[in-house]
Amino acid sequence: MAVQRILGIDPGLRITGFGVIEAVDGKLSYVTSGVIKTASAKKGVQGEPEKEALPERLKVILDGLFEVIATYQPTQVAIEKVFVNVNPQSTLLLGQARGAAISAAVIKHLPVAEYTALQVKQSVVGNGHAQKEQVQEMVKRLLKLPATPSPDSADALACAICHAHGGQGLGALATTGFRVKNGRLI
Amino acid sequence: MAVQRILGIDPGLRITGFGVIEAVDGKLSYVTSGVIKTASAKKGVQGEPEKEALPERLKVILDGLFEVIATYQPTQVAIEKVFVNVNPQSTLLLGQARGAAISAAVIKHLPVAEYTALQVKQSVVGNGHAQKEQVQEMVKRLLKLPATPSPDSADALACAICHAHGGQGLGALATTGFRVKNGRLI
Repeated sequence: MAVQRILGIDPGLRITGFGVIEAVDGKLSYVTSGVIKTASAKKGVQGEPEKEALPERLKVILDGLFEVIATYQPTQVAIEKVFVNVNPQSTLLLGQARGAAISAAVIKHLPVAEYTALQVKQSVVGNGHAQKEQVQEMVKRLLKLPATPSPDSADALACAICHAHGGQGLGALATTGFRVKNGRLI
Repeated sequence: MAVQRILGIDPGLRITGFGVIEAVDGKLSYVTSGVIKTASAKKGVQGEPEKEALPERLKVILDGLFEVIATYQPTQVAIEKVFVNVNPQSTLLLGQARGAAISAAVIKHLPVAEYTALQVKQSVVGNGHAQKEQVQEMVKRLLKLPATPSPDSADALACAICHAHGGQGLGALATTGFRVKNGRLI
Protein backbone atom coordinates (compact mmCIF):
# COMPACT_ATOMS: atom_id res chain seq x y z
CA MET A 1 0.00 0.00 0.00
CA ALA A 2 1.58 3.23 -1.17
CA VAL A 3 0.76 6.10 1.17
CA GLN A 4 1.70 9.67 0.30
CA ARG A 5 1.04 12.70 2.45
CA ILE A 6 1.25 15.72 0.23
CA LEU A 7 1.52 19.30 1.41
CA GLY A 8 0.37 21.67 -1.32
CA ILE A 9 1.43 25.32 -1.09
CA ASP A 10 0.08 28.36 -2.92
CA PRO A 11 2.72 30.92 -1.99
CA GLY A 12 2.15 34.65 -1.54
CA LEU A 13 3.61 37.37 0.64
CA ARG A 14 0.26 38.45 2.04
CA ILE A 15 -1.51 35.09 1.98
CA THR A 16 0.11 31.67 1.67
CA GLY A 17 -2.42 28.88 1.21
CA PHE A 18 -1.64 25.36 2.37
CA GLY A 19 -3.43 22.05 2.11
CA VAL A 20 -2.49 18.51 3.12
CA ILE A 21 -4.00 15.47 1.46
CA GLU A 22 -3.33 11.79 1.78
CA ALA A 23 -3.10 9.53 -1.26
CA VAL A 24 -3.45 5.82 -0.50
CA ASP A 25 -3.05 3.75 -3.65
CA GLY A 26 -4.33 6.68 -5.66
CA LYS A 27 -7.37 7.33 -3.43
CA LEU A 28 -7.29 10.85 -2.11
CA SER A 29 -8.48 12.10 1.26
CA TYR A 30 -8.42 15.50 2.91
CA VAL A 31 -6.22 16.05 5.96
CA THR A 32 -6.13 19.79 6.57
CA SER A 33 -5.95 23.17 4.87
CA GLY A 34 -5.71 26.84 5.73
CA VAL A 35 -3.90 30.08 5.10
CA ILE A 36 -0.92 31.86 6.63
CA LYS A 37 -1.42 35.62 6.60
CA THR A 38 1.27 38.23 7.07
CA ALA A 39 0.50 41.86 7.78
CA SER A 40 2.38 44.61 6.02
CA ALA A 41 4.41 46.94 8.23
CA LYS A 42 3.04 49.99 9.90
CA LYS A 43 3.53 53.01 7.72
CA GLY A 44 6.73 54.93 8.48
CA VAL A 45 6.97 58.58 9.45
CA GLN A 46 6.77 59.67 5.82
CA GLY A 47 4.11 57.09 5.15
CA GLU A 48 6.59 54.87 3.36
CA PRO A 49 5.36 51.40 2.48
CA GLU A 50 6.62 48.24 4.21
CA LYS A 51 10.38 47.87 4.11
CA GLU A 52 12.23 46.44 7.08
CA ALA A 53 9.20 44.27 7.73
CA LEU A 54 9.96 41.82 4.93
CA PRO A 55 12.23 39.56 7.04
CA GLU A 56 9.54 39.41 9.75
CA ARG A 57 6.89 38.56 7.17
CA LEU A 58 9.02 35.78 5.73
CA LYS A 59 9.50 34.49 9.28
CA VAL A 60 5.73 34.28 9.71
CA ILE A 61 5.50 32.17 6.53
CA LEU A 62 8.39 29.94 7.64
CA ASP A 63 7.03 29.44 11.16
CA GLY A 64 3.54 28.73 9.82
CA LEU A 65 4.80 26.10 7.40
CA PHE A 66 7.12 24.56 10.01
CA GLU A 67 4.08 24.17 12.24
CA VAL A 68 2.01 22.55 9.47
CA ILE A 69 4.89 20.19 8.66
CA ALA A 70 5.46 19.27 12.32
CA THR A 71 1.75 18.69 12.95
CA TYR A 72 0.72 16.86 9.78
CA GLN A 73 4.01 15.21 8.80
CA PRO A 74 3.76 15.39 5.00
CA THR A 75 6.18 13.22 3.01
CA GLN A 76 6.25 15.47 -0.05
CA VAL A 77 5.61 19.07 -0.99
CA ALA A 78 3.99 20.44 -4.13
CA ILE A 79 4.22 24.16 -4.70
CA GLU A 80 2.60 26.34 -7.30
CA LYS A 81 4.87 28.15 -9.71
CA VAL A 82 3.95 31.75 -9.31
CA PHE A 83 3.09 33.82 -12.30
CA VAL A 84 5.28 36.72 -13.20
CA ASN A 85 3.47 39.90 -12.28
CA VAL A 86 3.42 42.95 -14.53
CA ASN A 87 4.80 44.94 -11.61
CA PRO A 88 8.49 43.97 -11.10
CA GLN A 89 8.41 45.01 -7.44
CA SER A 90 5.46 42.67 -6.82
CA THR A 91 7.27 39.91 -8.69
CA LEU A 92 10.28 40.37 -6.43
CA LEU A 93 8.15 40.27 -3.26
CA LEU A 94 6.27 37.21 -4.47
CA GLY A 95 9.59 35.54 -5.35
CA GLN A 96 10.87 36.14 -1.84
CA ALA A 97 7.73 34.67 -0.28
CA ARG A 98 8.03 31.64 -2.53
CA GLY A 99 11.73 31.34 -1.66
CA ALA A 100 10.81 31.24 2.03
CA ALA A 101 8.10 28.61 1.44
CA ILE A 102 10.51 26.35 -0.48
CA SER A 103 13.11 26.97 2.24
CA ALA A 104 10.72 25.69 4.90
CA ALA A 105 10.25 22.47 2.91
CA VAL A 106 13.89 21.78 2.03
CA ILE A 107 15.07 22.56 5.58
CA LYS A 108 12.74 19.76 6.71
CA HIS A 109 14.27 17.51 4.03
CA LEU A 110 11.05 17.20 2.06
CA PRO A 111 11.19 16.73 -1.72
CA VAL A 112 9.59 19.66 -3.52
CA ALA A 113 7.77 19.44 -6.85
CA GLU A 114 6.73 22.54 -8.77
CA TYR A 115 3.63 22.94 -10.93
CA THR A 116 2.34 25.83 -12.96
CA ALA A 117 -1.21 27.06 -12.36
CA LEU A 118 -2.01 25.68 -15.80
CA GLN A 119 -0.81 22.19 -14.87
CA VAL A 120 -2.76 22.32 -11.62
CA LYS A 121 -6.00 23.40 -13.30
CA GLN A 122 -5.52 20.86 -16.07
CA SER A 123 -5.03 18.12 -13.51
CA VAL A 124 -7.92 19.05 -11.21
CA VAL A 125 -10.53 20.51 -13.56
CA GLY A 126 -9.35 19.05 -16.85
CA ASN A 127 -9.00 22.56 -18.28
CA GLY A 128 -5.86 24.63 -17.87
CA HIS A 129 -7.83 27.83 -18.11
CA ALA A 130 -10.51 26.97 -15.55
CA GLN A 131 -11.96 29.68 -13.33
CA LYS A 132 -11.13 29.89 -9.62
CA GLU A 133 -14.66 28.77 -8.74
CA GLN A 134 -14.32 25.63 -10.86
CA VAL A 135 -11.09 24.75 -9.05
CA GLN A 136 -12.79 25.23 -5.68
CA GLU A 137 -15.76 23.10 -6.78
CA MET A 138 -13.61 20.26 -8.13
CA VAL A 139 -11.39 20.25 -5.02
CA LYS A 140 -14.54 20.00 -2.92
CA ARG A 141 -15.80 17.06 -5.02
CA LEU A 142 -12.49 15.18 -5.33
CA LEU A 143 -11.84 15.38 -1.58
CA LYS A 144 -15.53 14.94 -0.64
CA LEU A 145 -15.51 18.11 1.46
CA PRO A 146 -18.69 19.24 3.25
CA ALA A 147 -18.16 22.83 2.03
CA THR A 148 -16.23 24.79 -0.58
CA PRO A 149 -12.70 25.68 0.54
CA SER A 150 -11.51 29.28 0.35
CA PRO A 151 -9.71 30.18 -2.90
CA ASP A 152 -6.22 30.11 -1.34
CA SER A 153 -6.78 26.81 0.46
CA ALA A 154 -8.38 25.40 -2.68
CA ASP A 155 -5.37 26.35 -4.81
CA ALA A 156 -3.02 24.71 -2.32
CA LEU A 157 -5.15 21.55 -2.15
CA ALA A 158 -5.40 21.55 -5.96
CA CYS A 159 -1.62 21.69 -6.19
CA ALA A 160 -1.37 18.69 -3.85
CA ILE A 161 -3.98 16.83 -5.93
CA CYS A 162 -2.03 17.64 -9.09
CA HIS A 163 1.05 16.11 -7.50
CA ALA A 164 -0.94 13.00 -6.43
CA HIS A 165 -2.04 12.67 -10.05
CA GLY A 166 1.60 12.61 -11.03
CA GLY A 167 1.41 16.17 -12.29
CA GLN A 168 -0.70 14.88 -15.15
CA GLY A 169 -4.33 14.98 -16.24
CA LEU A 170 -7.34 13.82 -14.27
CA GLY A 171 -6.97 10.18 -15.19
CA ALA A 172 -3.20 10.03 -14.67
CA LEU A 173 -2.79 10.23 -18.42
CA ALA A 174 0.45 8.56 -19.44
CA THR A 175 2.35 11.39 -21.05
CA THR A 176 5.84 10.20 -20.17
CA GLY A 177 8.00 10.79 -23.17
CA PHE A 178 5.45 13.12 -24.73
CA ARG A 179 5.66 16.86 -24.76
CA VAL A 180 2.87 18.85 -23.20
CA LYS A 181 2.38 22.52 -23.97
CA ASN A 182 -0.45 24.65 -22.65
CA GLY A 183 -1.98 21.53 -21.20
CA ARG A 184 -2.09 19.78 -24.58
CA LEU A 185 -0.02 17.03 -26.03
CA ILE A 186 2.00 18.32 -28.95
CA MET B 1 32.63 48.09 24.68
CA ALA B 2 30.01 47.54 22.01
CA VAL B 3 30.87 44.54 19.86
CA GLN B 4 28.85 43.76 16.75
CA ARG B 5 29.46 40.84 14.44
CA ILE B 6 27.78 41.61 11.17
CA LEU B 7 27.10 39.13 8.40
CA GLY B 8 26.67 40.92 5.09
CA ILE B 9 24.91 39.08 2.26
CA ASP B 10 24.80 39.87 -1.45
CA PRO B 11 22.10 37.44 -2.57
CA GLY B 12 21.92 35.77 -5.95
CA LEU B 13 20.66 32.44 -7.26
CA ARG B 14 23.93 31.54 -8.96
CA ILE B 15 26.33 33.29 -6.57
CA THR B 16 25.55 34.50 -3.06
CA GLY B 17 28.36 36.56 -1.55
CA PHE B 18 28.85 36.67 2.20
CA GLY B 19 31.19 38.59 4.47
CA VAL B 20 31.52 38.82 8.23
CA ILE B 21 33.05 41.81 9.96
CA GLU B 22 33.43 42.79 13.57
CA ALA B 23 32.73 46.32 14.76
CA VAL B 24 34.19 47.15 18.17
CA ASP B 25 33.27 50.66 19.24
CA GLY B 26 33.06 51.66 15.61
CA LYS B 27 36.40 50.09 14.64
CA LEU B 28 35.93 47.54 11.89
CA SER B 29 37.85 44.33 11.37
CA TYR B 30 37.57 41.54 8.83
CA VAL B 31 36.45 38.10 10.00
CA THR B 32 35.69 36.09 6.86
CA SER B 33 34.16 36.27 3.41
CA GLY B 34 33.37 34.05 0.47
CA VAL B 35 30.73 32.95 -1.99
CA ILE B 36 28.12 30.22 -2.13
CA LYS B 37 27.69 28.94 -5.65
CA THR B 38 24.79 26.90 -6.94
CA ALA B 39 24.89 25.07 -10.22
CA SER B 40 21.95 25.13 -12.56
CA ALA B 41 20.34 21.78 -13.32
CA LYS B 42 21.45 19.50 -16.05
CA LYS B 43 19.64 20.33 -19.25
CA GLY B 44 16.52 18.25 -19.80
CA VAL B 45 15.79 16.12 -22.82
CA GLN B 46 14.62 19.10 -24.81
CA GLY B 47 17.45 21.21 -23.44
CA GLU B 48 15.05 23.03 -21.13
CA PRO B 49 16.66 25.35 -18.59
CA GLU B 50 16.75 24.60 -14.85
CA LYS B 51 13.36 23.88 -13.36
CA GLU B 52 12.89 21.29 -10.65
CA ALA B 53 16.38 22.18 -9.46
CA LEU B 54 15.31 25.44 -7.82
CA PRO B 55 14.49 23.86 -4.42
CA GLU B 56 17.89 22.13 -4.40
CA ARG B 57 19.63 25.38 -5.28
CA LEU B 58 17.85 27.24 -2.50
CA LYS B 59 18.92 24.44 -0.15
CA VAL B 60 22.57 25.01 -1.12
CA ILE B 61 22.18 28.71 -0.25
CA LEU B 62 20.45 27.90 3.05
CA ASP B 63 23.00 25.26 4.07
CA GLY B 64 25.88 27.54 3.13
CA LEU B 65 24.53 30.42 5.20
CA PHE B 66 23.66 28.13 8.14
CA GLU B 67 27.29 26.98 8.10
CA VAL B 68 28.61 30.55 8.03
CA ILE B 69 26.26 31.52 10.89
CA ALA B 70 27.21 28.46 12.97
CA THR B 71 30.94 28.98 12.41
CA TYR B 72 31.22 32.77 12.76
CA GLN B 73 28.29 33.51 15.08
CA PRO B 74 27.18 36.88 13.70
CA THR B 75 24.83 38.94 15.88
CA GLN B 76 23.20 40.81 13.00
CA VAL B 77 22.62 40.41 9.30
CA ALA B 78 22.71 43.09 6.60
CA ILE B 79 21.43 42.11 3.19
CA GLU B 80 21.52 43.97 -0.07
CA LYS B 81 18.19 44.91 -1.61
CA VAL B 82 18.33 43.39 -5.02
CA PHE B 83 17.60 45.49 -8.02
CA VAL B 84 14.63 44.67 -10.16
CA ASN B 85 15.82 43.05 -13.34
CA VAL B 86 14.38 43.92 -16.74
CA ASN B 87 13.65 40.22 -17.20
CA PRO B 88 10.69 39.28 -14.94
CA GLN B 89 11.77 35.63 -14.82
CA SER B 90 15.22 36.67 -13.53
CA THR B 91 13.58 38.98 -11.01
CA LEU B 92 11.50 36.05 -9.75
CA LEU B 93 14.55 33.76 -9.45
CA LEU B 94 16.56 36.46 -7.70
CA GLY B 95 13.65 37.10 -5.34
CA GLN B 96 13.51 33.43 -4.42
CA ALA B 97 17.25 33.33 -3.70
CA ARG B 98 16.92 36.43 -1.55
CA GLY B 99 13.93 34.90 0.23
CA ALA B 100 16.04 31.86 1.08
CA ALA B 101 18.92 34.01 2.34
CA ILE B 102 16.61 36.03 4.61
CA SER B 103 15.01 32.75 5.74
CA ALA B 104 18.39 31.43 6.86
CA ALA B 105 18.91 34.55 8.99
CA VAL B 106 15.46 34.74 10.58
CA ILE B 107 15.40 31.00 11.33
CA LYS B 108 18.56 31.61 13.35
CA HIS B 109 16.79 34.51 15.11
CA LEU B 110 19.13 37.14 13.70
CA PRO B 111 17.84 40.67 13.09
CA VAL B 112 17.98 41.52 9.39
CA ALA B 113 18.58 45.01 7.99
CA GLU B 114 18.15 45.78 4.30
CA TYR B 115 20.15 48.28 2.26
CA THR B 116 19.94 49.29 -1.36
CA ALA B 117 23.09 49.09 -3.50
CA LEU B 118 22.99 52.89 -3.55
CA GLN B 119 23.04 53.11 0.25
CA VAL B 120 25.88 50.59 0.42
CA LYS B 121 28.01 52.44 -2.15
CA GLN B 122 27.25 55.78 -0.53
CA SER B 123 28.32 54.41 2.83
CA VAL B 124 31.49 52.68 1.67
CA VAL B 125 32.73 54.83 -1.20
CA GLY B 126 30.89 58.06 -0.47
CA ASN B 127 29.26 57.92 -3.90
CA GLY B 128 26.04 56.03 -4.54
CA HIS B 129 27.00 55.48 -8.15
CA ALA B 130 30.51 54.14 -7.54
CA GLN B 131 31.91 51.43 -9.81
CA LYS B 132 32.36 47.84 -8.63
CA GLU B 133 36.16 48.30 -8.57
CA GLN B 134 35.86 51.33 -6.27
CA VAL B 135 33.75 49.29 -3.85
CA GLN B 136 36.34 46.49 -3.87
CA GLU B 137 39.17 48.97 -3.30
CA MET B 138 37.43 50.77 -0.44
CA VAL B 139 36.45 47.50 1.25
CA LYS B 140 40.11 46.44 1.02
CA ARG B 141 41.25 49.73 2.60
CA LEU B 142 38.59 49.95 5.31
CA LEU B 143 39.20 46.37 6.45
CA LYS B 144 42.99 46.54 5.85
CA LEU B 145 42.91 43.46 3.64
CA PRO B 146 46.14 42.17 2.07
CA ALA B 147 44.39 41.76 -1.29
CA THR B 148 41.30 42.89 -3.14
CA PRO B 149 38.24 40.74 -2.40
CA SER B 150 36.23 39.25 -5.29
CA PRO B 151 33.30 41.41 -6.42
CA ASP B 152 30.66 39.23 -4.72
CA SER B 153 32.56 39.01 -1.43
CA ALA B 154 33.29 42.73 -1.62
CA ASP B 155 29.60 43.57 -2.08
CA ALA B 156 28.69 41.43 0.93
CA LEU B 157 31.44 42.99 3.07
CA ALA B 158 30.39 46.45 1.86
CA CYS B 159 26.83 45.73 2.96
CA ALA B 160 28.11 44.72 6.41
CA ILE B 161 30.22 47.91 6.57
CA CYS B 162 27.19 49.98 5.59
CA HIS B 163 25.28 48.43 8.48
CA ALA B 164 28.19 49.10 10.88
CA HIS B 165 28.06 52.72 9.73
CA GLY B 166 24.43 52.77 10.75
CA GLY B 167 23.37 52.60 7.14
CA GLN B 168 24.66 56.13 6.74
CA GLY B 169 27.55 57.95 5.06
CA LEU B 170 31.25 57.29 5.53
CA GLY B 171 31.55 59.33 8.71
CA ALA B 172 28.36 58.04 10.31
CA LEU B 173 26.64 61.24 9.26
CA ALA B 174 23.77 61.97 11.61
CA THR B 175 20.80 61.95 9.28
CA THR B 176 18.21 60.76 11.76
CA GLY B 177 15.07 62.71 11.15
CA PHE B 178 16.30 63.86 7.75
CA ARG B 179 15.17 62.44 4.46
CA VAL B 180 17.76 60.94 2.17
CA LYS B 181 17.05 60.38 -1.49
CA ASN B 182 19.55 59.07 -4.01
CA GLY B 183 22.20 59.31 -1.34
CA ARG B 184 21.55 63.04 -0.78
CA LEU B 185 19.81 64.86 1.98
CA ILE B 186 16.67 66.49 0.69
